[in-house]
This record gives sequence, structure tokens and C-alpha cells, in this order.
Amino acid sequence: MTGRVMIIGLGPGPAKWVTPEASALLAEATDIIGYGPYVDRVPPSPARRHASDNRVEVDRARHALELATAGADVAVVSGGDPGVFAMAAAVFEAVEAGDPAWRDLDIVVVPGVTAVLAAAARLGAPLGHDFCVISLSDNLKPWSIIEKRLVAAVEGDFVLAFYNPASKARPDQIGRAFDVLRRQAGERIVVLAKAVGRPDEDIIVTSLSAVKPEEVDMRTLVLIGSSQTRLIERGEAEPWIYSPRRWDA
Amino acid sequence: MTGRVMIIGLGPGPAKWVTPEASALLAEATDIIGYGPYVDRVPPSPARRHASDNRVEVDRARHALELATAGADVAVVSGGDPGVFAMAAAVFEAVEAGDPAWRDLDIVVVPGVTAVLAAAARLGAPLGHDFCVISLSDNLKPWSIIEKRLVAAVEGDFVLAFYNPASKARPDQIGRAFDVLRRQAGERIVVLAKAVGRPDEDIIVTSLSAVKPEEVDMRTLVLIGSSQTRLIERGEAEPWIYSPRRWDA
Repeated sequence: MTGRVMIIGLGPGPAKWVTPEASALLAEATDIIGYGPYVDRVPPSPARRHASDNRVEVDRARHALELATAGADVAVVSGGDPGVFAMAAAVFEAVEAGDPAWRDLDIVVVPGVTAVLAAAARLGAPLGHDFCVISLSDNLKPWSIIEKRLVAAVEGDFVLAFYNPASKARPDQIGRAFDVLRRQAGERIVVLAKAVGRPDEDIIVTSLSAVKPEEVDMRTLVLIGSSQTRLIERGEAEPWIYSPRRWDA
Repeated sequence: MTGRVMIIGLGPGPAKWVTPEASALLAEATDIIGYGPYVDRVPPSPARRHASDNRVEVDRARHALELATAGADVAVVSGGDPGVFAMAAAVFEAVEAGDPAWRDLDIVVVPGVTAVLAAAARLGAPLGHDFCVISLSDNLKPWSIIEKRLVAAVEGDFVLAFYNPASKARPDQIGRAFDVLRRQAGERIVVLAKAVGRPDEDIIVTSLSAVKPEEVDMRTLVLIGSSQTRLIERGEAEPWIYSPRRWDA
């Protein structure tokens, strides 16, 4: 008898963005595994809860795979979408390197609303055109590849979204990224979208020349406009931001 | 008295991927506007339904803005997420160019699960690393900017997702894109993910050297791996596909 690993995206925070599929499968789980704050978001249920610290993704993945091998129906929970800088890749890394029997398990990935979509919706339509999604964490990749990607993304005139833009261990990362972009792109609209959809939501609309790196924390989604992204001014109200579908040279 | 425009993402197809927020706001709408097949997905309600043809996005947006100005509570529906190659940008384009009174309207964008997230979840974790999302439609941008973006995305070694990869009016677009990628990237894992989550779902796992452009249609999400993306073989079962979080030179 073997169980199942369900890798479930909880969306950016509020219950209104948890899909019916995620809710239904969470109710079926015998075990819930994840970083503490995400486990805390799962509604009460009889499931055993295994909250762990941040940055132990592969340990957490192995734990889930072991429990499922023993017959459990395990939910591995992530904020946002589990495939975007969250637990799905860690589980498949553990499978590839681990017990061959894990390849026979039933592993289901349940998509969710990822942070960039919630932030974009809050602002208007900044992703109206082609875009790139980049994690600024250099825990697992060298800064040289991050810088290469920033340069390439500007070269392609993509809208850019940054996940993991800063942390206590890497407070300078986002400042270095802004420096690269200023050098390559000149001026651009920048939005710092913190905790979108949550009580402490905070939106700062600024620009590459004016943005302050110290206003970015690990809960901030950073959006950088393309050369075409613009504001629709609305007097006293917050402007809408959008990227036209049409691209004019 | 003025109404509201709600620009709502219905997700890739099945009801399990429609968020509670989308369902709640659809139930409040007095009018539902959208491309016919999306309007048909909205559960029965007393709302007036205004189904329109494809490729009349800005007309549809103006219609919604006019109805809201007259007091209606209008839902503009899109598949997936409304901000990703869907109706949100068209509405803000119409606002920018239209009646200044439209800037005082209550316009709400409701995020959804976009196709690339559902396709990635179906396959494993192919977006485990940085990625670019590109529309291959050249209705609104010249092929030269599409080609420039493809070259830049390969330069940055991003995973790539293509929306609108082909249509009856543009059957050759995807073949041209594959040609550019083969020239720039050499070999890569390619997945054609058609109608993910729907009864006629069809997944083809192939490569840049073997992919057949004629297998791509307008309902296909095309995923191109980065240099790091790999398969986890599982004997008779379909392989899992993932992009490791760690990037090694």
C-alpha cells in the first residue's frame, strides 16, 4: 500500500484565492507538511501537522516521500503556486536523488495563484505583454547567472517580476539588481507590492531612479515595467498601471 | 450612480481551478461580457450575457465600461488569468483612450490560475527556475520583437512558455520560433500541453530537434526547458519534468 504526495499551492494569502481543488485535497490529507506560516493557513482538519523551518526544502520533501511510501496521504503546502520558487522542484529533486521506489508514488501538483498574478491584478494590467519571472535569491545559483538574466531580460524588453528580492542574509541583492537595470534600461516604472491581499498590504509605485532598496523585504514582489509600461493617472486616486498589448518600436 | 467593472480570470477550464473570489463576484454581476466560450463557462445566474467573437477585445472592453457607467455591475471574463494575454490590458487601453469619466469607475481585476501554471503542475516542476512567458501572436507586435525576445530568453537560459503559439491566420509562427530556438539553444526539452485539465487534454513530451509544428494549435501551451531542465524516467509511466532550483555552470 502506498500513499500520495500532493504538492499544493495556497495562493498569496487570503482564502478567496485558494482554489476549490486545493481545499478539497487539503481536506483529504492525513499529513500536512510545510514551512510553519503556510501550514498555519490550512483550515482545521484531523491531519497531522509537520511544520518546519524555512530553507529545509529538500528535507521536507524527503519526509513527505517517506510518509507517502508508508501509506500516508501527504499534503506539501506552499504559498502561491507550488511550481514557482516553491516546493514542487524540491520534491522532484528529492525523487530524482532518492529511493527508486519513490518514482512509483502518486505525486500530484496542485496549481495556485502565484504572487505576480495577484500583484498585477492589484495594479491594473502590468503584465499585458511578455514578461520574465526571476528569483533574486543566490542561495542556489551564482549571482553571475542572475545578472546575466537581468541583462537578457532588459535586452528583450520584458516586464520583470522578482521573487525573493531580499532577506536578512542578502539585504544587498535587490540594490545590485536595480544597479544592473539602471545601467541597462535607463528609466522604468517600478512597483513594490508587499503582502498583496493581506491586512498589511503596501503598494509603492516608483521608478528605477527613485526606488529605495531598503523598502524591499522578503514579502515584497518587485515589478519592473518594460519600455512600454505606463501609468493611467486618476487625480487623487492611485494610478492604474498597464503594459499595452501593442508594441510600437 | 456608477457601477463596476470586474475583470475575472476563470482559470484554464475546470471548475476546480476557479477561485472563490471569481465565483463570488460572478454571482454578483448584472452583466457578463466575454468571448463566447468563456461566457459559456460561467454558472447559470440571472445576469445578462453578452458573448462576443474573438479578437474584438477593445470593443468588448468599451462595452463593459459603458454599461458600468450606466450603473451595471459588469463581469468581463477571460480564461486563465485576466492579466496574462487576456482582457485586463484591453480594458485599461480602452480607459486610457476613452471617456475621462471612465477613470472614476471602480475597476477590479480578479487573478486566476494561468495556463502555464496548470501545464507545469501537470508535468512536474518545469518552472523550478527563472522563466519567461511570451505570446507568439504577431497581431499586435512585429515578428522582429518576438524574435528578439526569443534570442534574449535563450541568452538568459530561461525556461520559456508560449501562449497563442498558432492560429489559422498564423500557422507558421510556431515553426519560425522553433527555428530561432534551434539556432540559439541547440537541443532542449519541449512539451506541448494541450487543453490541460479538460477532457481532451493531450501532453506531448519531445525536444527541439523532434518537435512537429503541426502538432501545435491555439489551445496548446508550449514549454521549452532551460539548459538545466530534465526528465525523471519512470519506466512505463510518463516521465516527470523538472528544472532544478540549483543552477550549475
